[in-house]
Amino acid sequence: MIDKLIKRIIELQNPTCVGLDTDFNYLPDNLKEGVTGFRKATNAICEFNKNIIDAVCDIVPAVKVQIAYYEMYGVEGMKAFKYTLDYARKKGLIVIADCKRNDIGSTASCYSKAYIGKTEIGGKKARALPADMLTVNGYLGFDGIKPFVSDIIENKKSIFVLVKTSNPSGGELQNLKLENGKCIYEQMGELVEDWGKFFVGKYGYSEVGAVVGATHPEEAARLRSQMKNTFFLIPGYGAQGGSAEMLKVCFDKRGLGGIVNSSRAIICAYKNEKYKGLGYAEAARAACIDMQKDLSSTIGHMGK
Amino acid sequence: MIDKLIKRIIELQNPTCVGLDTDFNYLPDNLKEGVTGFRKATNAICEFNKNIIDAVCDIVPAVKVQIAYYEMYGVEGMKAFKYTLDYARKKGLIVIADCKRNDIGSTASCYSKAYIGKTEIGGKKARALPADMLTVNGYLGFDGIKPFVSDIIENKKSIFVLVKTSNPSGGELQNLKLENGKCIYEQMGELVEDWGKFFVGKYGYSEVGAVVGATHPEEAARLRSQMKNTFFLIPGYGAQGGSAEMLKVCFDKRGLGGIVNSSRAIICAYKNEKYKGLGYAEAARAACIDMQKDLSSTIGHMGK
Repeated sequence: MIDKLIKRIIELQNPTCVGLDTDFNYLPDNLKEGVTGFRKATNAICEFNKNIIDAVCDIVPAVKVQIAYYEMYGVEGMKAFKYTLDYARKKGLIVIADCKRNDIGSTASCYSKAYIGKTEIGGKKARALPADMLTVNGYLGFDGIKPFVSDIIENKKSIFVLVKTSNPSGGELQNLKLENGKCIYEQMGELVEDWGKFFVGKYGYSEVGAVVGATHPEEAARLRSQMKNTFFLIPGYGAQGGSAEMLKVCFDKRGLGGIVNSSRAIICAYKNEKYKGLGYAEAARAACIDMQKDLSSTIGHMGK
Repeated sequence: MIDKLIKRIIELQNPTCVGLDTDFNYLPDNLKEGVTGFRKATNAICEFNKNIIDAVCDIVPAVKVQIAYYEMYGVEGMKAFKYTLDYARKKGLIVIADCKRNDIGSTASCYSKAYIGKTEIGGKKARALPADMLTVNGYLGFDGIKPFVSDIIENKKSIFVLVKTSNPSGGELQNLKLENGKCIYEQMGELVEDWGKFFVGKYGYSEVGAVVGATHPEEAARLRSQMKNTFFLIPGYGAQGGSAEMLKVCFDKRGLGGIVNSSRAIICAYKNEKYKGLGYAEAARAACIDMQKDLSSTIGHMGK
């Protein structure tokens, strides 16, 4: 799946991922009017997501759907989550389920089935919440990652393991120095590079990627030079303060090596003075085009 | 909520938590017969869980529901997850949602709303997937924990942060030594103790607990002496190899300080030669009684 993503980034010259972190409160007033209860709220979210997807699917390679924004509406939220995954995949987008799942092996295998594998009942296999890529947390070490790796192989999927997160307190644990001189995030990076070494695709990047925040350029630069075969999912651009200049260190000489997520700056672009007069879907498209320009002018041509 | 849990442990003289990690494949043949598709499978899981809950609710203080085992059945699985939480709470059990959620602050607040808080739509607040306690992963540092702490205060709930996990490769990252001489799990333990310091209840334990596996007694002993005010959720007893002898280091002189989870050894007790002839619910009850005897004979009277 990583080759497919990189191919699409090159075709579109756009390493932008649209984050569908669709809080009901983000919706325009006309979609919120008179809405009560989880079912109606999530119907409105689905309509919003559908229109955003329609507006951007020909100019961006991928969407990232943050499951927390759906879990908070319970079962109805999960229906909307699945709808969003299904619709985005139908429209040709690569879909990253941002779930940061983690557990011991037997339990991790259930998570893997849910998002990138298949669940068997009475000899028949079916997909539960089908995504193409999944974010996971590596705090439990390799036996919590292994089940995902099995599904990567069997179902041609990818994962991204948290290495260096974009939030202000990310360093509280991640930046502590180990006895061996490395920081925890560097050690995690080393593990991730190792976990992916047998699954390197034709562009030199493996199916086991890393989450590396745009807000910490020094750390990102260190990780890029240390993790030659690891593709980065880069959150923190836009609303969280990361800029193209800050994150260009995540890319290699060919202009490859990462995909940059932006959520609020795209899906809430209609609230931005810059896009005044545009509907929310048109504003999202315009924000994606601006983001593509910003990224490509800094990173250069992708896939030289 | 931690006081309520400890009070109930003392009343029942039983620090046992029943893990409802109900894989469809664990069900007895008569519940599986002719079942196809997620809806029928999860209906069977609900029936199974209901009967287990009815059989144990007067002898154990809590259940832990591992969400991965429900997510793998998609939206239908989430319905079964909610049904299980609701039914267990209705029967007076304290319900731990084992979700190990983690993300940056804004996203963590959505997870918190989902399980221990409330979600607001059009000025009205409702609970999505109501649990009493939630497991979380602290890799992102305090701003990923803060939203949960807010809901702990507002809604009288608790969380358990992963510190030392029970799986074989848990030490791959957690046992690495830091420059300051501590292991990563000890450092995480220190953070957790600190995060909970303002929320210590009448038994001396805070609403911010820790997950500490039964399978690593040396590490657990070190954590117990270091984390005086932190209550432990202890997985790994039974099927994973942890014994009462191994985990008694998690308890203080009063016989308090932890709750021990067992999943497969209880819900699959009907497959155990020892409980031959009993139905699955009766076998689960018998296994809980045996576990209570084993734990109390080792830990001693609870709440001296």
